[in-house]
Amino acid sequence: MPSTLSEFDLIKTFFEGVGPKSDVVGFGVGDDCAVINIPSNNSLCISMDTMVEGIHFLPGSPPQKIAYRALAAAMSDLAAMGAEPSHFTLSLTLPVSSYEWLSEFSLGLKALADQFHFPLVGGDTTKGPLTISLQVHGLIPAGQALMRSGAKAGDIVAVTGTLGDAGAALSILDRLGDRQLTDSQLFLLNRYYYPSPRIEQGLQLRLLASACIDISDGLLADASHIAERSKVELEINSESLPLSEALLTDQADNASGLALSAGDDYELLFTISESNWKMLNEQKTPHIFTRIGRVNEGAGVVVKNCTQSSKSMGYKHFE
Amino acid sequence: MPSTLSEFDLIKTFFEGVGPKSDVVGFGVGDDCAVINIPSNNSLCISMDTMVEGIHFLPGSPPQKIAYRALAAAMSDLAAMGAEPSHFTLSLTLPVSSYEWLSEFSLGLKALADQFHFPLVGGDTTKGPLTISLQVHGLIPAGQALMRSGAKAGDIVAVTGTLGDAGAALSILDRLGDRQLTDSQLFLLNRYYYPSPRIEQGLQLRLLASACIDISDGLLADASHIAERSKVELEINSESLPLSEALLTDQADNASGLALSAGDDYELLFTISESNWKMLNEQKTPHIFTRIGRVNEGAGVVVKNCTQSSKSMGYKHFE
Repeated sequence: MPSTLSEFDLIKTFFEGVGPKSDVVGFGVGDDCAVINIPSNNSLCISMDTMVEGIHFLPGSPPQKIAYRALAAAMSDLAAMGAEPSHFTLSLTLPVSSYEWLSEFSLGLKALADQFHFPLVGGDTTKGPLTISLQVHGLIPAGQALMRSGAKAGDIVAVTGTLGDAGAALSILDRLGDRQLTDSQLFLLNRYYYPSPRIEQGLQLRLLASACIDISDGLLADASHIAERSKVELEINSESLPLSEALLTDQADNASGLALSAGDDYELLFTISESNWKMLNEQKTPHIFTRIGRVNEGAGVVVKNCTQSSKSMGYKHFE
Repeated sequence: MPSTLSEFDLIKTFFEGVGPKSDVVGFGVGDDCAVINIPSNNSLCISMDTMVEGIHFLPGSPPQKIAYRALAAAMSDLAAMGAEPSHFTLSLTLPVSSYEWLSEFSLGLKALADQFHFPLVGGDTTKGPLTISLQVHGLIPAGQALMRSGAKAGDIVAVTGTLGDAGAALSILDRLGDRQLTDSQLFLLNRYYYPSPRIEQGLQLRLLASACIDISDGLLADASHIAERSKVELEINSESLPLSEALLTDQADNASGLALSAGDDYELLFTISESNWKMLNEQKTPHIFTRIGRVNEGAGVVVKNCTQSSKSMGYKHFE
């Protein structure tokens, strides 16, 4: 195979056929636009996410991991709305069109796209510093989108999965060296490289939660977005945070600090009334939801029983 | 004003309110996703375009011009489908969040977005090498999208506007120095910096043209896409190409060569039956359409009466 490819060959070889075919896609890759047919009475949720080498991932990161994580992070925004993944587009800027790199990158996309029946329908490829922009699209029955703005005093605050794992992975990467990884460390690194977009959980929460957001910048930072949009206070009990065994094994001293402040977990943070919380927990699903606090009248985020420092209120670009 | 801004402030200050409000937008900037309501019996056309500093524009280019040209180029793909602009998203990667730069950039977007009632509904801002990704969305009655694949032997080949102007502008920029610009040169530079997305013409062609594409890579390169997708030959008469007075004044020696091969004009190239061509020309509109050739059985693109060299078959990234 040639080591450089034209844009047309590149798209044909690596990006046609990522994700299975779907009725929603009238026409995919190969014309000026993709043509999408939205089922009636559905709204379309859209979100665009960009990852830049050296900012969002280390130079030389394995392309399969970059692709998987970028797509999972973008899909997490659909999960937070309660939307069902419909189709996505990719803008890929890269310095050299290496066959090996693209092949691995495409496999990373395909792993998630196939799992969620999520076809890649178009995009752009250009030469330049390695940058990945993904726009994800999801369907939701009109009026049922989970917004950040619906939390009410008296609601429960809850999350999916466990928190702080991805943050712990970053600290492992910082001190990795040549040492053998423990099982816990491997678990934590996989949580960072291969986040699970909580699509099914989002669908389950659609008619039950009062507000929802995905935790990309850290629990406290993302909680503050719900507080601000809903004009309420979110009270979080740091003793209730769901922590993985791996996190407690590898970094017990800093576990709740990471769970409060580290980003990249892509779990869902939501608020829900007491009665709906009961209904949610009566549903037979394998998903774990943990109550971590409550919604009060007021503003901002309050943490109770906090013994570990939570260094920042989440990562803000440009600060 | 501070010279650096948080991502939240940046979006609020510069990107909320770009383009007027629209019924299509259920919810815009400020949640995990934007929520879009597509009118029934419409398809959604989507296209993503990325421009990178140093590849698609010179380092230090005025931000207002970068923004205008990037959005116009992206909208041109909607025009080529016969779609009506509906909403767009922006991913902006930039090294430093300068108030002045963003303010000018936002004005460039606003100029076009307001003109076409085209609201910005979301996106992403990140730190990194200057890169602009735009995804544009347009509406079209189901089944009416203008594809590249419908050209038939016997059809007329035609274009909107004039060709080669943007290519001439690039050669002016190469030899600019301190000299005073002539009126022709100013016209050509404006054609490059401020391309007009041919939205109205696309709408006019929707039920008449058999195939359509926008000329971004150069007439010959883009004609070859129609030829390939439609499995026909496109014959182009180089003596029929519409050339602006400014181009003939400034670069007569190379005018038809530029019109055949230079990119960035963002005019529409289309094929149309003889009877529909007659109907098109009977419609009372200010738009100029020029017949430049015909569709034959066969494959590829043939140029007749070509006296000037057409150096390349269009710009291909990665070659």
